[in-house]
Amino acid sequence: MTGQQPTGVEAGTGKDAILRAARRAFTLRPYAEVTMRSIAADAGVSASLIVKRFGSKERLFHTVADFGPAADALFAAPPATLGRHLVLTLVRMRREDQGDPLLRAVFSLGNMDERTLLRERFREQITSRLARQLHGRESELRAELIAGLLLGLGATLSLHRPGAGERATAEQLADLYAPAVQRLITGSED
Amino acid sequence: MTGQQPTGVEAGTGKDAILRAARRAFTLRPYAEVTMRSIAADAGVSASLIVKRFGSKERLFHTVADFGPAADALFAAPPATLGRHLVLTLVRMRREDQGDPLLRAVFSLGNMDERTLLRERFREQITSRLARQLHGRESELRAELIAGLLLGLGATLSLHRPGAGERATAEQLADLYAPAVQRLITGSED
Repeated sequence: MTGQQPTGVEAGTGKDAILRAARRAFTLRPYAEVTMRSIAADAGVSASLIVKRFGSKERLFHTVADFGPAADALFAAPPATLGRHLVLTLVRMRREDQGDPLLRAVFSLGNMDERTLLRERFREQITSRLARQLHGRESELRAELIAGLLLGLGATLSLHRPGAGERATAEQLADLYAPAVQRLITGSED
Repeated sequence: MTGQQPTGVEAGTGKDAILRAARRAFTLRPYAEVTMRSIAADAGVSASLIVKRFGSKERLFHTVADFGPAADALFAAPPATLGRHLVLTLVRMRREDQGDPLLRAVFSLGNMDERTLLRERFREQITSRLARQLHGRESELRAELIAGLLLGLGATLSLHRPGAGERATAEQLADLYAPAVQRLITGSED
């Protein structure tokens, strides 16, 4: 990192700042309107640094539309403990990377441009992958509802700032919220 | 309704079509960019009909930012059965009015213009009202998480089209999803 670095961008965090800015840009604005320069300005880095790290605008958009890395982290637990793992991982990713790993799929709703790719990828990489891991009846429906629980958690934490969820620890949130997730994973009817 | 009515707008549904179009417009675009003419075109009605029914652009925006009518419908059940009532009511409102009663609060995230009003109103009219109805510990946190469950249900139903949630009845969705909502209302720790 060079001396002209704007505030807030330390060595090693530039990548997160670029990804956060790119997620915001590509989900809130039509693809054609997004420029590398505006992402760079939002991230507090130079446009050339973004090109060096992520390549072209098209490649950066495909990185933003890729839920694979998030899915790898979220689904890295056996079914019996997956509910709690999902909640803890989501909250920690939000707080450590300062951005929600899934919520951009919701922001893309209602837009019929390139952003439909975000929804397609979400369905493939999150919901369908989850459905294949579930045993028992209605696995597709349960996977959609589990995805809803995760999107809703992110949405409400973003919406209520300042708020009680923002002040709660990841463990407190998991105590209250994970049983609902686990119940849909297990598929119990009680 | 006159003979020149565009397709999809029948007598009596014009109001819903206008509200849906207004919600889309005011949540997806900056306030300054929204025009009555564009809402009218999207709703398939004349701009003068909108003015007649809803008044000025400012008044229409305040109607869009008002979650009070949705809250009245959603919260019209005693605590013991509120979880199921919330899920059934949300799904039915989505299907009968062809629009989610709450989700526009999420679409407004990340925008610092007039759309902050949608988030403020949501917090007052949905989350705080809900928190006041909850007994037991952590009522504010539980209310935020219940709001998350409702936002997540709407988000996932919108995201998975076509999908299993779309094909499910409101009763089937309530069977799977309402226990999670009820658990946070009741505040049980098991």
